[in-house]
Amino acid sequence: MEDLLEIGGKKIACRLFLGTGKYAGNAQMREALLAAQADVVTVALRRVESGAMAESILDYIPPSCTVMINTSGARNAAEAVRIARLARASGAGDWIKIEVIADSRYLLPDNLETLKATETLVKEGFITFPYMSPDLSMARRMADCGAAAVMPLGSPIGTNRGVRTRELVEILIREISVPIIVDAGLGKPSDACQCMEMGCAAVMVNTAVAVAPDPVEFARAFSLAVKAGRLAYRTGMPGSAAEARASSPLTGFLRDHD
Amino acid sequence: MEDLLEIGGKKIACRLFLGTGKYAGNAQMREALLAAQADVVTVALRRVESGAMAESILDYIPPSCTVMINTSGARNAAEAVRIARLARASGAGDWIKIEVIADSRYLLPDNLETLKATETLVKEGFITFPYMSPDLSMARRMADCGAAAVMPLGSPIGTNRGVRTRELVEILIREISVPIIVDAGLGKPSDACQCMEMGCAAVMVNTAVAVAPDPVEFARAFSLAVKAGRLAYRTGMPGSAAEARASSPLTGFLRDHD
Amino acid sequence: MEDLLEIGGKKIACRLFLGTGKYAGNAQMREALLAAQADVVTVALRRVESGAMAESILDYIPPSCTVMINTSGARNAAEAVRIARLARASGAGDWIKIEVIADSRYLLPDNLETLKATETLVKEGFITFPYMSPDLSMARRMADCGAAAVMPLGSPIGTNRGVRTRELVEILIREISVPIIVDAGLGKPSDACQCMEMGCAAVMVNTAVAVAPDPVEFARAFSLAVKAGRLAYRTGMPGSAAEARASSPLTGFLRDHD
Amino acid sequence: MEDLLEIGGKKIACRLFLGTGKYAGNAQMREALLAAQADVVTVALRRVESGAMAESILDYIPPSCTVMINTSGARNAAEAVRIARLARASGAGDWIKIEVIADSRYLLPDNLETLKATETLVKEGFITFPYMSPDLSMARRMADCGAAAVMPLGSPIGTNRGVRTRELVEILIREISVPIIVDAGLGKPSDACQCMEMGCAAVMVNTAVAVAPDPVEFARAFSLAVKAGRLAYRTGMPGSAAEARASSPLTGFLRDHD
Repeated sequence: MEDLLEIGGKKIACRLFLGTGKYAGNAQMREALLAAQADVVTVALRRVESGAMAESILDYIPPSCTVMINTSGARNAAEAVRIARLARASGAGDWIKIEVIADSRYLLPDNLETLKATETLVKEGFITFPYMSPDLSMARRMADCGAAAVMPLGSPIGTNRGVRTRELVEILIREISVPIIVDAGLGKPSDACQCMEMGCAAVMVNTAVAVAPDPVEFARAFSLAVKAGRLAYRTGMPGSAAEARASSPLTGFLRDHD
Repeated sequence: MEDLLEIGGKKIACRLFLGTGKYAGNAQMREALLAAQADVVTVALRRVESGAMAESILDYIPPSCTVMINTSGARNAAEAVRIARLARASGAGDWIKIEVIADSRYLLPDNLETLKATETLVKEGFITFPYMSPDLSMARRMADCGAAAVMPLGSPIGTNRGVRTRELVEILIREISVPIIVDAGLGKPSDACQCMEMGCAAVMVNTAVAVAPDPVEFARAFSLAVKAGRLAYRTGMPGSAAEARASSPLTGFLRDHD
Repeated sequence: MEDLLEIGGKKIACRLFLGTGKYAGNAQMREALLAAQADVVTVALRRVESGAMAESILDYIPPSCTVMINTSGARNAAEAVRIARLARASGAGDWIKIEVIADSRYLLPDNLETLKATETLVKEGFITFPYMSPDLSMARRMADCGAAAVMPLGSPIGTNRGVRTRELVEILIREISVPIIVDAGLGKPSDACQCMEMGCAAVMVNTAVAVAPDPVEFARAFSLAVKAGRLAYRTGMPGSAAEARASSPLTGFLRDHD
Repeated sequence: MEDLLEIGGKKIACRLFLGTGKYAGNAQMREALLAAQADVVTVALRRVESGAMAESILDYIPPSCTVMINTSGARNAAEAVRIARLARASGAGDWIKIEVIADSRYLLPDNLETLKATETLVKEGFITFPYMSPDLSMARRMADCGAAAVMPLGSPIGTNRGVRTRELVEILIREISVPIIVDAGLGKPSDACQCMEMGCAAVMVNTAVAVAPDPVEFARAFSLAVKAGRLAYRTGMPGSAAEARASSPLTGFLRDHD
């Protein structure tokens, strides 16, 4: 009956994963997480370690949430691995979103370095979520070496352009054995809904919510849309047709009254 | 705080209007209406008048719903007007979805006959909802003569092809003073969500729900998606960008740990 | 063998119709028409009648071209009819693109007034080309009353947004007996190519060519693209598939060399 | 004036590269190559080496064409390298399309093995054209190690689905220093035209032409479309707009005649 995503030893009810960057403040972020009933949130390690005096962002994350540290800022596998180890050492847990970016304009992930980091971190017992440019051969390697899920981008980070990589993401969904979680580029609730209808296990959203005029209500909207798309996928989608099919009895009506 | 659609003297909370055709049975239809918390449902007059002995479809519509009789089967304005009058005479109320179809392959509405029927029925005190092929000049005439809303099609009836007329529907939303309700062709919750994000006042769905593997859950999914899209529209959508914008602090991270 | 469009008693080789507005000058316009080998060009009547002293735009149109006067500026049927009659009286011929626009923001045609003007002008012996918002019921009336062709818009005039009305235009192509000529909104040669592949009889382009950095070469590009699309349509398009099909022998190759 | 693609020491006029698989016969293939005025054609090595008695496909390729041997059938870098060496040894030249496919359903390339083969073959003096799943980080490595061009797929081989990877291909065009040649999935001339307008240096087509009802005319259509798109790109595309802009003088016309 219940529809839980089992991943990394946890059972997750909310398939909308949220980021924590770009909010106007920690209190607003917290409200957005609560409005969405988020179960998984990503945090950049740097933001965790803001020093003894500063308040930690972690204090604002509801205790029911699982924190996934992202390796934002890493430019290669070695840096990503180092960030992951620092995260674990600082008590931030072992869920790691592996983000290795060498491109400064589109912030696209480096699939090869990401794969290397995944291989290393899986061996060290991390629960890994590699963020990647959608490509079947690399996604398969990530899954084969033990990634908990694969996170292809919908479009470049922060662009709100939607699932422009749909053709490739749909292939990942059919061919890869671990959950597919679209991350990056989703700008509207309908984008997230569409991903779930396609069969994604979850989606990750940050910018669209954090920079919306009303982040709390926008988080709620995304959460509803994810539920809608998931429900439609689970219960089965009807097909589409090239020509019309009447939904009401069309002909002969008036004859009966003549 | 509350977000009600005021139309024809009523205040409507649920912006997902549902049809009643094509369900496996009346009990299933009723469950779907309840799952969606539908406030407005369309019924073809023929199905209302199934004779004294037969059970009426109306008995299965929750009392909280407003019934909108559709003129399905009408091939011209005169036939549509006659159906509307019969509906009123039979006690089915004066909310009329004006559907005039002369095309048997795509079931596309005849805008000119639809306009004529609208003019006549408005004068007779009906609350009219003309179903139309999206066209600014005809939609404006319908609004000017007193239509309660204008219902452009997303794609041909029953095709589940989505909002293929988006370019024209968006123009109606900006230029027409009465509510725009996309009717026909919406096949997935994300289609409905997208319509609401664009600024539609409501959407109407029949085939996609009624023929889904699980109509009740699919109705629920559509209802959630409509809420999501409406909430996003109301609170304001963020824009999109051509290039990436980091959602986490990207640079300098590792330097701090060197 | 030859593929000529027969319309209004003429046989037309070039299925790219060009407008004459917005060029930097008449000489440039003439060069563009020649580069495209255009056979049909539209001219606003006002621009024909620039007074005795002024040079006429008509002097710059190659003699092989058929001039189609457009009723640009008309806000209703009566004005369009008047312009058409003035055009004939001034010797500009009887090919009339009927353009009736009541909307100042999107410049969308008024289908009902356009139909009325078509009815009148057909009776007066004009060869009429009504410009319309794509709608099957109105297009059918225009064809039935004698329009030489029907010209649905691809997107609003001058926007270069392409064939956003594709769903409706494809229906016109299948259901309407006279040639369908997409007019307005085509911004790139590939847009025009796509229209021809769909089965349009011709396309009309003005803004995209006239405001291009190099109108002459852009006209040539559009002309090639129209030829390409037409040729593909005539000889038959292959279908598409959901899964891959090898184009080269894939397996067993290396075994042969082992 | 002339617009030649310089690649591998050659100057290429025709930016439509054609494959040689799937034709009904060699004579038809030859006619298609001539109709397109193709300068570059790919051949699977296996088809070159059909034995002493059999006629060779190479006899049917016009002498003006440069032959690019593809490594179709290779499942890893080692196999691709071996095919390339065999090709050179058999006198088929040193232009190699590196195709390494490990996926039997979508025939998607294995980017990592393709990169390895590219590195090896470049060192051995081959002119390499790696076929890849579009991904910036891997394309950059291929270019950096000396690939003559990078060939991202538009959609899976033989599907005729068009440029579904547009978002990623456009990024390659802007960020990668070697020519980008879209290969696979282009089904219509307008697809090829669109690629060229985006700024691709060339496109490669096989299935759509070879299985068309009339391959010779379809090759001609593709060739025209590629020329059109290239010309538009070179001379500069106009932008697009959200609202309409009149192409003819709209107002005041009739006042002049009142």
